[in-house]
Amino acid sequence: MIMAVHSKKFSVHWFPPLLLLFVMAFLPATQSKMPNLDVFRKSRMVNPSAAKPSSTSKDDLQTFFYTQTLDHFNYRPESYTTFQQRYMINFKYWGGVNSIAPIFVFLGEESSLDDDIESIGFLTDHAPRFNALIVYIEHRYYGKSVPFESWEKSFQNTETLGYFNSAQALADYAEVIIDLKKNLSAEFCPVIVMGGSYGGMLASWFRLKYPHVALGALASSAPILYFDDITPHNGYYSIVTKDYREASESCHDTIRESWSEIDKVASQADGLSVLSQKFKTCSPLNTSFELKDYLDSIYAETAQFNRPPENIVNKICDVIDGAPKGTDILSRVFAGVVAYMGNRSCYDTNYYNYPTQGYFGWRWQTCSELVMPIGRGSNDTMFPSSPFDLKNYTKSCQDLYGVPPRPHWITTQFGGHDIRLVLQKFASNIIFSNGLKDPYSSGGVLANISDSIVAIYTNEGSHCMDLYQASAHDPKWLVMQRQLEIETIKGWIEKYYVELAAANQDNPAEPSQN
Amino acid sequence: MIMAVHSKKFSVHWFPPLLLLFVMAFLPATQSKMPNLDVFRKSRMVNPSAAKPSSTSKDDLQTFFYTQTLDHFNYRPESYTTFQQRYMINFKYWGGVNSIAPIFVFLGEESSLDDDIESIGFLTDHAPRFNALIVYIEHRYYGKSVPFESWEKSFQNTETLGYFNSAQALADYAEVIIDLKKNLSAEFCPVIVMGGSYGGMLASWFRLKYPHVALGALASSAPILYFDDITPHNGYYSIVTKDYREASESCHDTIRESWSEIDKVASQADGLSVLSQKFKTCSPLNTSFELKDYLDSIYAETAQFNRPPENIVNKICDVIDGAPKGTDILSRVFAGVVAYMGNRSCYDTNYYNYPTQGYFGWRWQTCSELVMPIGRGSNDTMFPSSPFDLKNYTKSCQDLYGVPPRPHWITTQFGGHDIRLVLQKFASNIIFSNGLKDPYSSGGVLANISDSIVAIYTNEGSHCMDLYQASAHDPKWLVMQRQLEIETIKGWIEKYYVELAAANQDNPAEPSQN
Repeated sequence: MIMAVHSKKFSVHWFPPLLLLFVMAFLPATQSKMPNLDVFRKSRMVNPSAAKPSSTSKDDLQTFFYTQTLDHFNYRPESYTTFQQRYMINFKYWGGVNSIAPIFVFLGEESSLDDDIESIGFLTDHAPRFNALIVYIEHRYYGKSVPFESWEKSFQNTETLGYFNSAQALADYAEVIIDLKKNLSAEFCPVIVMGGSYGGMLASWFRLKYPHVALGALASSAPILYFDDITPHNGYYSIVTKDYREASESCHDTIRESWSEIDKVASQADGLSVLSQKFKTCSPLNTSFELKDYLDSIYAETAQFNRPPENIVNKICDVIDGAPKGTDILSRVFAGVVAYMGNRSCYDTNYYNYPTQGYFGWRWQTCSELVMPIGRGSNDTMFPSSPFDLKNYTKSCQDLYGVPPRPHWITTQFGGHDIRLVLQKFASNIIFSNGLKDPYSSGGVLANISDSIVAIYTNEGSHCMDLYQASAHDPKWLVMQRQLEIETIKGWIEKYYVELAAANQDNPAEPSQN
Repeated sequence: MIMAVHSKKFSVHWFPPLLLLFVMAFLPATQSKMPNLDVFRKSRMVNPSAAKPSSTSKDDLQTFFYTQTLDHFNYRPESYTTFQQRYMINFKYWGGVNSIAPIFVFLGEESSLDDDIESIGFLTDHAPRFNALIVYIEHRYYGKSVPFESWEKSFQNTETLGYFNSAQALADYAEVIIDLKKNLSAEFCPVIVMGGSYGGMLASWFRLKYPHVALGALASSAPILYFDDITPHNGYYSIVTKDYREASESCHDTIRESWSEIDKVASQADGLSVLSQKFKTCSPLNTSFELKDYLDSIYAETAQFNRPPENIVNKICDVIDGAPKGTDILSRVFAGVVAYMGNRSCYDTNYYNYPTQGYFGWRWQTCSELVMPIGRGSNDTMFPSSPFDLKNYTKSCQDLYGVPPRPHWITTQFGGHDIRLVLQKFASNIIFSNGLKDPYSSGGVLANISDSIVAIYTNEGSHCMDLYQASAHDPKWLVMQRQLEIETIKGWIEKYYVELAAANQDNPAEPSQN
């Protein structure tokens, strides 16, 4: 669910604060040497006693491995290679086959299940009410589900990475779920797939492509429209800008002015050394871009993951605005960094020195098919101009992997253009949930498409908030959003039971269909 | 549209009267050295003046080639290989972009477009009424659309054949149609895909998987339920049996008795030679199975393609029944062969001595993913027992290609089990058309699934009759079937225009979706 803050200067600096930032959220800051997303950790740790007893516990989970086919869409001998795909099951709440109790399936995204499973509270929070089985399936090439001998071999080159894409992942999920239901004799138990961010895209696409496997989907913060030209390129940064402006107009102005201020200092003799000192960088800055990119990523990720009670965007703006009169712009901006990162002996602007496996996975995925054209013009956000340039993007990927991306494949395969026109009389049972403060909501589905393909959003929410474990500190709008999602899913399942009963009673005149 | 009579003794004798029979329909019998499907040729040639002026003419067709991607679901360097996929367009009736006139797309099946295009009259017969553009797209690995240098190289081994499957073919079609619409600025022109038999399966699957590319599908004689255990194995031969029994109970009885009679003669000294003489085989029979298989394929294909005014099943039964009193069973059966094949100096029971390219293509497809478990028990048809044995089937394919089939992949990918339950609230705009005398109708969708996923069948029809060019000799029920199909498609398109107009007038409150 933790789709990375995207890459904005793609061809210049690779994938700034991608997925790894959110993986980071689960590691102590000292260990990670990377910015610590306090927003996540704290909100998970504050007052744990308030957490419902239904929350995920590792004790309730059993781990399994499915012997998965390497290539579902090819019959070359190599395609038949198999690998062990990890999935985990929590049987604790399941009502079983006799009551046709539902199955909640979390579709893994661009990270190890180990990183996700404790934060995804939505399934365990609501499984008791549904007597639902809970299943978590890991995405191929992440965590323990690497298809070749080791992670290194799997990521060796395009020969091994070629099998790493969304179509294969969806087929994996279909196979695991069908096999599991068969093994449990649970063929008629309704499956609801759930996921966030990239995993949310997968959830909605899974319902579209495999309606015979999943009855419905909860797609949280899924920017399925951030492909091709469907969403304006500056959608993401426009919302980051709006979030900061709503927190404080003067804070927004300060940040907007800071970029040229940085350039001005940098252009002076010894300017980079001045900036390095001012921002206490762990190693001397080589370019002013390095600093700007670091700040950019902080604003982006704080907007993406802003949430109460921390409200980190406000916290940053409070110190930027609250500095004594006469404080210069760069000192204000640095105070914002400190407010977010905490007091440190130094700040590492080069955290891609320590990329994670998730980083490499997501880099491949965005360099092959998940080409999200995120950019911005010269005066449409509080950031410096950085237009998305497909030509440069393609060249960078080509240089890196030897093969170019296929930037139109996602819309060819899954659609997206004129989505309401296409889906209003086709498909059903999808929730697109969003928080409008999430920059990725700009590429989300924000209006109902039909009675059963619905948009459930909050004005205040950020990225994937609904999927996290409920807490006593949750604002009312979040509680209500989850409630509405649950009621919607309940409605699908109830209707399904009626249809199932009718199907069982059917004795239609010949010729008939089973 | 001309999906082959399937293989019944799969592990023993490879794919008896497969596709090639129907390719054969377009070749003079003398050239083919194979049974000549008079039923096709005659009905196309009788009284050509009765054909509508809208019928397909090669003069109206323009041929194009699309640079197609070898593997849509993989990013290995080899996946990026491209090949030239053939498609043809008839612009004659098109109303153009300004009137948002529809596009009829014929999805190629297991044969060269050259073999199909003249017999598929449905599109040209009805295009004038719709002002429709007509497009025919050839299926990869058939006709001129072979992905490697030559047919031989493409069929060399599993390394080259691996890319030959339905998922890749559907993605091909999506790319061609999207590209074509873009080139014509016809993005909003509604596409209706059409196909018969395997092509009908593809049409229905295409609407299910690519609703953003096709508004609707006409799936003629598409046995999408003849996979896994959805349809009883003996469905196909049960209908062949029923067709013969309905033509004449005594004819059916004679055929039913003939098998043991053949075995009895064969078991005698010099018995095979007696049979060879009796059936005027071009070369001496090696086994009695060879003869039985030949007869089996004749009954199957005549049932599959029985149609007025020839009504070949009745014609065969007339001579079987009409032989002078006292005529022995085998002479009667041979008279049936002559009635179908015509008077010949000899009858070639080994016509797989001359396999076509289509034969090899279909053999691969049925040996990889299109595993249709067609068999029969010991007393449930007029044929000798020949149960479908997945183990033997798998072994045969494995021996032939080095890789086993994936017999459950079709239902994993496309569904099929409990189809009404799954699709009644999902998807729309599919016509499943069938003739109940077609043995493949046993695996077809024969009941409405919803208001817009409908079954249109005739009691008298055989395989894919609706797709052929209209003729003055068409029975009323066929005329009505086509009429109902056209009215249904017209309804989809009219609704679409209303929705499109509404979408263009929409000015929904923010946040909105385009």
